[in-house]
Amino acid sequence: MDVERREQLLAVYRDGLLDNTLPFWLKFGVDEQHGGVLTSLDRQGRVVDTDKGVWQQARFTWLLGELYNRVEPRRQWLELAKRGAAFLEQHCLDPDDGRMWFHVTRDGKPIRKRRYAFSECFAAIAFGELAQATGESHYAEKARQAFQKFLDHNLHPPRSAAKFTDTRPTRGMGFPMQTIVTAQELRDSIGLQNAEQWIDRSIEDIRRFHFKEDLQCVMETVGPDGQVIDHFDGRTLNPGHAIEGAWFIMLEGKLRGEQGLIGTGCQMLDWMWERGWDSQHGGMLYFVDLYGLPVQEYWHDMKFWWPQNETIIATLLAYMLTGDPKYADWHRQIHDWAYRHFPDPEHGEWFGYLHRDGSLSSTLKGNLWKGPFHLPRMQLVCWQLLANEAR
Amino acid sequence: MDVERREQLLAVYRDGLLDNTLPFWLKFGVDEQHGGVLTSLDRQGRVVDTDKGVWQQARFTWLLGELYNRVEPRRQWLELAKRGAAFLEQHCLDPDDGRMWFHVTRDGKPIRKRRYAFSECFAAIAFGELAQATGESHYAEKARQAFQKFLDHNLHPPRSAAKFTDTRPTRGMGFPMQTIVTAQELRDSIGLQNAEQWIDRSIEDIRRFHFKEDLQCVMETVGPDGQVIDHFDGRTLNPGHAIEGAWFIMLEGKLRGEQGLIGTGCQMLDWMWERGWDSQHGGMLYFVDLYGLPVQEYWHDMKFWWPQNETIIATLLAYMLTGDPKYADWHRQIHDWAYRHFPDPEHGEWFGYLHRDGSLSSTLKGNLWKGPFHLPRMQLVCWQLLANEAR
Repeated sequence: MDVERREQLLAVYRDGLLDNTLPFWLKFGVDEQHGGVLTSLDRQGRVVDTDKGVWQQARFTWLLGELYNRVEPRRQWLELAKRGAAFLEQHCLDPDDGRMWFHVTRDGKPIRKRRYAFSECFAAIAFGELAQATGESHYAEKARQAFQKFLDHNLHPPRSAAKFTDTRPTRGMGFPMQTIVTAQELRDSIGLQNAEQWIDRSIEDIRRFHFKEDLQCVMETVGPDGQVIDHFDGRTLNPGHAIEGAWFIMLEGKLRGEQGLIGTGCQMLDWMWERGWDSQHGGMLYFVDLYGLPVQEYWHDMKFWWPQNETIIATLLAYMLTGDPKYADWHRQIHDWAYRHFPDPEHGEWFGYLHRDGSLSSTLKGNLWKGPFHLPRMQLVCWQLLANEAR
Repeated sequence: MDVERREQLLAVYRDGLLDNTLPFWLKFGVDEQHGGVLTSLDRQGRVVDTDKGVWQQARFTWLLGELYNRVEPRRQWLELAKRGAAFLEQHCLDPDDGRMWFHVTRDGKPIRKRRYAFSECFAAIAFGELAQATGESHYAEKARQAFQKFLDHNLHPPRSAAKFTDTRPTRGMGFPMQTIVTAQELRDSIGLQNAEQWIDRSIEDIRRFHFKEDLQCVMETVGPDGQVIDHFDGRTLNPGHAIEGAWFIMLEGKLRGEQGLIGTGCQMLDWMWERGWDSQHGGMLYFVDLYGLPVQEYWHDMKFWWPQNETIIATLLAYMLTGDPKYADWHRQIHDWAYRHFPDPEHGEWFGYLHRDGSLSSTLKGNLWKGPFHLPRMQLVCWQLLANEAR
């Protein structure tokens, strides 16, 4: 990548984050009254639903803390992160079982808990950033507790958490992936003692159960021993998700200087780019079938914002780690397609939901699922990668 | 409607059912080995998933029984209906709580139960048709039991069935609608004693809680007293579903000769046609927002087969009951759009999932959700309506 291209991209990511994405959420999303963030915003930033997704509360808190710790110590970012953490502590935990809610009202009354436990890992990284920013040990304690709850629930799911019978047990990519990135974040923010063990164990699980040399793909859901489950759910691949996992592993390889990890991550990217890139219209498809059969999920061929974000990070990182021009080419393709279709030139931020052909399906800027996370994380990670290379 | 148009439509529905839809499922779907039906078929009728949806097992059994009882007593239809009922009895009931499963393996091992109870009402009408066809009282008993379980679970949901906390209780259209049509079917097949009471009560619930004169619409989900819940889920309208409910009520008005019921059904259709008809591309949208705000469900603007089926029935019935040319016009619009986009001219049956613009999203002919039900029911109901008018 020549200097000019690098500088240009660096500005797109940095300025996009600081001058576009972040101001959108700070202006329209911050809940001055109750703390936390309102993410269900229309195109212009108007609130269309006051309910709060717990994932998004935790992720925005993490983002603000991360920016404070990594970019610059702006007072506003820290104050809002503290208010987000207070909302999480006061309203997002169910004292009955220590689990976190998934969906609460604006003022924090619980609406729904999920049988899975991902609110917990996002809360862990949010508290971790606050521990780093403030030096206050209670945040570090909260971070460790939330991470432990996330691990415990996934490793020893209570009977009541079962959505399916025991007839066909499964193993998903979500748990090892989120374990890697959460441990990476907590190692960085609070110096989590056993982070490397959790990361190693999770990468080992992915390699052993999900990484399929013979099928040339990363399976999202497999049997307990990694068997292909030849039914809709078992065959459904999620390329953007696997590519997100790929860059977590590449990043670990970069940090440790381990070529083996970089190779694993690049291989995951290679396979899933082939599976997910839409050669007809461009962009990453949401779901595809292992054998090219029809997929059951209705939105399988839509273009969601986040698989594009994750693929932009992964291709850039793969290029910077290997120098392989294939990755520079892929990065250009996905970056250009995404930036041509997703940003809202009029009101800022990105749309979240496009049809397969790139036309707009929904004007929402956020909801319980889309908030200030995948896009600003991409902008931050890519900016930092490019800035570090320049040094 | 002139005689020529009527004859032409009658042939489209009758021949479509007997020469196209039904042969497709009899040829490709019937499970000779275990009984019941395999519905996860690709465009050509090849099985892409051997799992069985319990709704579809019950619905296909109902369809075969209904055809046997109403069209002609073909031995094959009755034999297959009996095998479907045997599969339901032997494999689809959980002895632990008397509830039915939602998803089982090909040979009937349980995979998943839902917190809601709709398998039960589809099983009830299936057993009802077999009672009528065979005169065997144990089928009538099974039908009554399944209907009672459906009612009990919905009227007194167990604590474990709660997906949400008590913070924001809701009331859905699904229960009263399914109560009406199930009671109508069981009145017809087994002479269910209290059918009229359940129908009256359910229509009253719809009128009282879901039918909104001031908002000019039928709400899918409201608060316990019919309040508008001003959040995504509360504002999400399902026009095809409300229109399905509309023709259940119109049909009851027709049977009883009650203009008030016909008026209610037509009003529901009028409002929801305005809400759901896609004036840009044609066809019925899946979900729309009460206030025209963006909808959270990803597939909100896709064109699914079944809302078109239900709207074709409702507009035809409304026209035949009122003679209002508006309904003849709407019927022509929805019929023509659906028949232009959904049928597979090469391999028969209809596709299920189109993009908003009518282009194909999935080549599936069936899955856990789509099976031999909405399309053949539409063909049968419309054929019979037109044939009865001719008499």
